[in-house]
Amino acid sequence: MGGREIATYHFNSDNGSPVCDQVMNALLACNHGVETAYGEDQVTARLKSAYSDFFERESYIFPVGSGTAGNGLALGAITPPYGTIFCHQASHIVTTEGGAPEFYSGGGRMTLLPGEHNKVSAKTLEEALSSHGIGNVHHMAASAVSVTQATEAGTLYELAELGDLSETAHRAGLKVHLDGARFSNALVSLQATPAQMTWQAGVDILTLGTTKNGTMNAEAVITFDPDLAKVLGHMHKRAGHLSSKMRFMSAQLLSFLENDLWRKNATQANRNAARIEVALKSCEGIEFAHPIAINEIFVSLPRGLTRALADKGLILRPWPLGSGKEWFRLVMSYCDTPEDLSLFEQTCHDYAQDCHRSVGRY
Amino acid sequence: MGGREIATYHFNSDNGSPVCDQVMNALLACNHGVETAYGEDQVTARLKSAYSDFFERESYIFPVGSGTAGNGLALGAITPPYGTIFCHQASHIVTTEGGAPEFYSGGGRMTLLPGEHNKVSAKTLEEALSSHGIGNVHHMAASAVSVTQATEAGTLYELAELGDLSETAHRAGLKVHLDGARFSNALVSLQATPAQMTWQAGVDILTLGTTKNGTMNAEAVITFDPDLAKVLGHMHKRAGHLSSKMRFMSAQLLSFLENDLWRKNATQANRNAARIEVALKSCEGIEFAHPIAINEIFVSLPRGLTRALADKGLILRPWPLGSGKEWFRLVMSYCDTPEDLSLFEQTCHDYAQDCHRSVGRY
Amino acid sequence: MGGREIATYHFNSDNGSPVCDQVMNALLACNHGVETAYGEDQVTARLKSAYSDFFERESYIFPVGSGTAGNGLALGAITPPYGTIFCHQASHIVTTEGGAPEFYSGGGRMTLLPGEHNKVSAKTLEEALSSHGIGNVHHMAASAVSVTQATEAGTLYELAELGDLSETAHRAGLKVHLDGARFSNALVSLQATPAQMTWQAGVDILTLGTTKNGTMNAEAVITFDPDLAKVLGHMHKRAGHLSSKMRFMSAQLLSFLENDLWRKNATQANRNAARIEVALKSCEGIEFAHPIAINEIFVSLPRGLTRALADKGLILRPWPLGSGKEWFRLVMSYCDTPEDLSLFEQTCHDYAQDCHRSVGRY
Amino acid sequence: MGGREIATYHFNSDNGSPVCDQVMNALLACNHGVETAYGEDQVTARLKSAYSDFFERESYIFPVGSGTAGNGLALGAITPPYGTIFCHQASHIVTTEGGAPEFYSGGGRMTLLPGEHNKVSAKTLEEALSSHGIGNVHHMAASAVSVTQATEAGTLYELAELGDLSETAHRAGLKVHLDGARFSNALVSLQATPAQMTWQAGVDILTLGTTKNGTMNAEAVITFDPDLAKVLGHMHKRAGHLSSKMRFMSAQLLSFLENDLWRKNATQANRNAARIEVALKSCEGIEFAHPIAINEIFVSLPRGLTRALADKGLILRPWPLGSGKEWFRLVMSYCDTPEDLSLFEQTCHDYAQDCHRSVGRY
Repeated sequence: MGGREIATYHFNSDNGSPVCDQVMNALLACNHGVETAYGEDQVTARLKSAYSDFFERESYIFPVGSGTAGNGLALGAITPPYGTIFCHQASHIVTTEGGAPEFYSGGGRMTLLPGEHNKVSAKTLEEALSSHGIGNVHHMAASAVSVTQATEAGTLYELAELGDLSETAHRAGLKVHLDGARFSNALVSLQATPAQMTWQAGVDILTLGTTKNGTMNAEAVITFDPDLAKVLGHMHKRAGHLSSKMRFMSAQLLSFLENDLWRKNATQANRNAARIEVALKSCEGIEFAHPIAINEIFVSLPRGLTRALADKGLILRPWPLGSGKEWFRLVMSYCDTPEDLSLFEQTCHDYAQDCHRSVGRY
Repeated sequence: MGGREIATYHFNSDNGSPVCDQVMNALLACNHGVETAYGEDQVTARLKSAYSDFFERESYIFPVGSGTAGNGLALGAITPPYGTIFCHQASHIVTTEGGAPEFYSGGGRMTLLPGEHNKVSAKTLEEALSSHGIGNVHHMAASAVSVTQATEAGTLYELAELGDLSETAHRAGLKVHLDGARFSNALVSLQATPAQMTWQAGVDILTLGTTKNGTMNAEAVITFDPDLAKVLGHMHKRAGHLSSKMRFMSAQLLSFLENDLWRKNATQANRNAARIEVALKSCEGIEFAHPIAINEIFVSLPRGLTRALADKGLILRPWPLGSGKEWFRLVMSYCDTPEDLSLFEQTCHDYAQDCHRSVGRY
Repeated sequence: MGGREIATYHFNSDNGSPVCDQVMNALLACNHGVETAYGEDQVTARLKSAYSDFFERESYIFPVGSGTAGNGLALGAITPPYGTIFCHQASHIVTTEGGAPEFYSGGGRMTLLPGEHNKVSAKTLEEALSSHGIGNVHHMAASAVSVTQATEAGTLYELAELGDLSETAHRAGLKVHLDGARFSNALVSLQATPAQMTWQAGVDILTLGTTKNGTMNAEAVITFDPDLAKVLGHMHKRAGHLSSKMRFMSAQLLSFLENDLWRKNATQANRNAARIEVALKSCEGIEFAHPIAINEIFVSLPRGLTRALADKGLILRPWPLGSGKEWFRLVMSYCDTPEDLSLFEQTCHDYAQDCHRSVGRY
Repeated sequence: MGGREIATYHFNSDNGSPVCDQVMNALLACNHGVETAYGEDQVTARLKSAYSDFFERESYIFPVGSGTAGNGLALGAITPPYGTIFCHQASHIVTTEGGAPEFYSGGGRMTLLPGEHNKVSAKTLEEALSSHGIGNVHHMAASAVSVTQATEAGTLYELAELGDLSETAHRAGLKVHLDGARFSNALVSLQATPAQMTWQAGVDILTLGTTKNGTMNAEAVITFDPDLAKVLGHMHKRAGHLSSKMRFMSAQLLSFLENDLWRKNATQANRNAARIEVALKSCEGIEFAHPIAINEIFVSLPRGLTRALADKGLILRPWPLGSGKEWFRLVMSYCDTPEDLSLFEQTCHDYAQDCHRSVGRY
C-alpha cells in the first residue's frame, strides 16, 4: 500500500468521492450498544426485506467491501473451475480486477468478445456460443455471461438488449451476471426499475455498487436464486467478506435506499456529466469516443483546450484510446462542486469564443 | 445474511462492540474532498511509515475487512497449493473460518496439532515435523506454522515460547504466521513491544486485529519480507480487499496507533476481565478451563450462580467444553459499562455470601 | 524421478508386480492400425457397455493412470471448493496422495474420523455430522464421505456396514465415494457382486483399481450418475487424464473383465496371503494388527523369526505401528512365486520347530 | 468416454498411430519381476542420466500420460495463481486442453497474442509486456511465456527467434515454456540439437512429446532448474501423474532415445509429409495455409481433387480456416503405409494430368 506517486486529476473517478452525509449519519446512528457479530445483528436483520422490496422479489444479499470482491463472488458462484465466462474484452473484470474471476471460480476462464461501445450484442454472443463447441471436453464449459451496466465506456444496454442477451445465454444453459458498479446511474438514465433491469431482463446475479454513489466501501452481491444463495454463503465467509461488525456494512446499504438516496446521488452525477457534455460540445475539435448516457465522458480534446483548462487548475486524466489523439476520461460524481463545474463551463465557453474570434480574424 | 434467530448474551464477544469515539472521529475527519482511489490517497500514504515505526522495522501493510480475510491472505502467501500449515487443532483458522486457508492457498491443508490451553509447543511441532516426511512427495510440503497470540483459549505464548517455535519452524524451512486477532490484548498482558512479539520472535507475517479493540472492520496483514509483500499485493487485489475508498480503512488503522489507542482499549478490556475473574473466584464451585491472561474467561459455573446472574439480566454464552459441566465463555471489551461490571461483581458477592451462610447454618 | 536409494523387500506391494500375460496380450492385440485419438477409438467404444454389464447398471467410466488421479477426480466431482470430505484418518487419500483431494476439489478439506482397523462406522459418521454444524457458513459444507474397500489395513466393510454408512451420508446430503484400490480383492473375499458393493450399497462414485491386479497403470473413475459424468468429462480432460492413445488404456480395462481376470488374480493374491497367515500363526510371538481379509498382512514378528527369514533372503518391509514392537507389512500379489511362498512357509515351520525344541530343552 | 460418432480420416493425426515395435519390445523386456513402485525402480533410475545426456545438461524429468498433463504441470510450476502466461492465441494450451493451464496454476490466465503462422515474435511479446502494466496489482502478474515448437500450424521458430523471445521474456522476469508435442519433428527439421532448441535458447521448462513419434502415452515435463524440479515433484504426485508401475513409463522414454528412435521416427514422418507436399504442389488450385516444415500440412483443395482422393478411399480431415475455401489438415506419421503414400501421390498425379489435358483441350 502507498508508495506510488499520487496524481490528482479533476473529475478523476467517482470512487474518489467522500461518504455522503446521509450515509455517514447512518453509521453514527448505529454506533451504540453491543450487537451480535457476523451479520446476526438488528441492522442486518432488515437488509433482506429492504432489498427484496427494492427489487420487487425475494432477494439474497451479501455485502462486500469492493466491486472486485462482488464480481469475483458472483462469477465464482455461477462458474465451475472448468467453465468460461463470456464477456466484453474491455470489461472491468478482464482488465482491472487482478484475476478475481479466475480466483473465485477456482480456475475458470473469460472468453473475450468484441462489441462497439463496450457492449456485447446477442448476435455476437450467439455466434461465440455456436463456435465454442459446447459439451466438448477439450474446450471449457460455457457457463456464464457477464455484462456491465452501465458499461465501462459509460454506455447503456437498452432493457430489450439485456433481455435478448439473457435469453441467448439461458438457451445455451449459461447464467447471467450483471456488474452494476454504476447500477444507479444506469437506472436513472434508463428510467427503469431495479426489477426491470435485473430479473425481468433475465439477470441471475448482480454486483450492486453503492460506493461510487456515496457509501464508504459497501457493495453487494445480490441473487434471486436460493440455491446460488447457499453457495454464496459459504464463499462469502471463506473469502473473508463476512464482516464481524456487519451492522456497519448493512447500515450503509440500508441508507442507500432511504429517501431514494441512490436516485438522488446518481441523478446529480449524471446531470453534472450532462453539463460538462454541453460545455464541451460548444468547443471545436473535440470528439466523444462513446455516446454519453451516465456520468462518464470519454473525449479527445484539442491541445488548446487542455491548456486552457490546465491554466485554471483543471487537470484531466489521460485515457489512451489510440488513433493518434489525446483522449481523456472524465467521471462526474454526486459531489462535484458547483465551482468546479462552473469553472469548467466558463473555460470551455471562453475557449470557444477565442476559437471563433481567431477564425473570424482571418 | 440475516434470518437466523438473534440471541444476545452479556460479555458475548469483543466483536460486538461499537466503534470507539477516537476512530469514528478519524473517519469523520478524513471525509472531505476527493482522493485518488485504491490506496493512492494521502491518508494511506502515511500507513506504511506509521506501522514501520510501531514495529521498529520496515513493514508492509495490507488492510482487510475481517480477520478471516487477513488469515487467509497471510497463509496463502506462505503456503503453496501443495503445502501444509501446522497449527493447533482448535485454532480459529481451523474451526471457524469456513476454509479460508484452503481457499487462499489454492488447495493447501492444515495439519492439526494438540496442546494444552490451545498452545502448540516447540516440542510438539518438532515431533510433527520429524514424522511428517519432509521432501516426500506423497506427503504435502511442510510450509508454514500458524500460532494465535493470544490464543482462542485466552492464553498466551511467552516470548521465549514463540521464539522456540519459530526457530523450530525456520530450521525445517517453514514460515511463521501469527494470528493476532487480540494482538493488543496480548501485548498489554505480556508488557512486550510489537517488535518483540513479532519479528524478534521469528514471526514472518501476521494478521493484526484492531476491530475487537475499537475500529469498524479494519484488520491488516503485515509482513516484514518485501518478497512476500509483492505476492500479497496481487493476492490482496484479486480477492477484492483493495478498497476503492481505501482512505477510510487507513484512517482507522492510523487512529488505532494514535495516543496508543490500542494500548488504552486493550488495557481496559483486560482489566475488566480481571475484575470478573476476581468476582468469580470468590464463589465456590466455579472452575476455570484455562489460565486467564487477557480479556477472555472460560469458566464453569454452578447452577445457582447462573440463575442468580440471569435474575439480574446477565445471560452468559454457553461454550460446550465437555466433562459434564456447564461452561461459559465471557469476553470483556474496552466498552463494557461500569454498571454491568458492578452488577456482575455484586451478584457474585451476594451469591458467595449466600453460599457461606448456607454452609454456616448447618 | 529416481535418485532415491532403492530398497527391495519381499511381499513389498502388489503395485510392484509386472503386467500379467492376458493384459499384455490385449495391448499387443490392439497395437495395429490407425485409430482416432482421445477416446474416439473402436476399443474405447466397448468400454462403457462392458462396465455397465459388470456393474449391472449404466456406468460412466473414466480411465486414469493412477489411484491418486482416480481418487482426486472422484472426490473433486462431489466436493465443492468450500466442502469437506469425511473419511478415516488413516485413509490413503489423507496420508499418501500428496493432497490430491484438495487439488481436485479446488480447496476442499478432509475431516478425519477415527475407527478400529481403518473402518469408519455409521455411528462415528453420524456423530461427526451432528457436531459439524451443517449449514453454518463458518464451517465447511459437509459434502462427501470417502471409504476405502478393502481398507488400507486390509480389512473389509460388510455390505450392511457400507449400506448404513451411505444411508447416514445421504440423509445429510453427502455423496459417497469408494476408494477401490483393492476392489477385486474385496469382492472376492466378500463373495459379493460389483453391484452389491457399489450402487446397491449407496456408493455414488468409485475409484476402481486394476493395476494391483495385473494391468499396467490403468485405474478408472466410475459413476452411475449422468450429471457427475458430465462434470467428470471436463475435469478428466483438463487434468490431462484423457490419453491421446486411449485405446491402450481401454484395452487393459476390457481385458481386466475378460475371463473374469479380476477374480482370478485377486483370488490368487488373497490365497497367497492366507498361506502366509497360516505359516505365521504356527510361530510363537507373532501378533496381527488387523484381521486378515484380503492380500495384506500387518504383523509384528519376533527378532528370531525376522532373522531366520532374512537368512533365507526374505527381507520384509518395516511398517511402524508403534507400541514398542517391530511391525511389518506384507502384501501378496497374483504373481508371487511358488518358490517364495514355500520358502516363507518352510522358514516359519523351521522356526516354530526350533522354538518348540528350545522350550522342550529346559 | 465413448459414445461419440467415430469418424476416420486419412492422415488424421500422429496421435492415432500404434506403438512402434522398438517401444513395445522395451515394454515387454521390462515386464518381469517385482519392482519398487512409484518411480523407485531400476528402470526409472536410468531416466535422469539418459535425458541429461540427451540435453547435455542436468535435467529433471517427470513422465506423464498426456501432453495436456505435461503442459499443465509445466505451466503450473512457473505461473502463480495470480499470474498470466503470454502465448499465441491459437496455441493448443488455449484452444484444446480444457483449461489445463488455469487448473494447474490454480487460477492463472493466458494472455493471447497474434502472430503469423502461429508464431509469436519477440516484438509482439515486447509490446504486450510494455502495455501490460507489470507490477500493477490491478493486472495479473506477467509470469511466463509459452511457445509451441513445432507450432500447431506445423511451422517452426528458428533458433535465433526462440532465443530472442526468451531474452525478451527473461528481461521482464518471465519464465519460458516450450510445448514440444512435436519436439522431435522440429529437431530433425532444424537439424538442431536438443540443447540448442531448449536451454541454449533460453527455455526453462518443456513438455516433451514422444507419443506422436511411437510411444504409448508417454510424455514428460523436463526442466533444468532444480528449484522448479522440487515444485514439480509435489505437483506431479498430487495430480496423480506419479504412476505406481512407473517402470513402464520410463521404459518407453528410455527406448525413445535408444538408437536415436526419436530421430528415425520423426525423420520418417517429416519425409512422408514432404512427399505429400510435392504431390499436392503438382496440382493446380491448391493453397497451403502455412509453410511446411514438419509433418503437418494445412491445405485448401479444389473439389475435384477432394473427390478424386475420396474415390480412392482417401478421406481427409476438414479444418475450417475460413476465407470461403475448403481447408484440410493432414498429419503424417512414422507409420504411414507406403501404399497410402503412393496412392495419394498417384491420385494427385492423375488429377494433375486430367487438369492439364482439360486445359490442353481448349
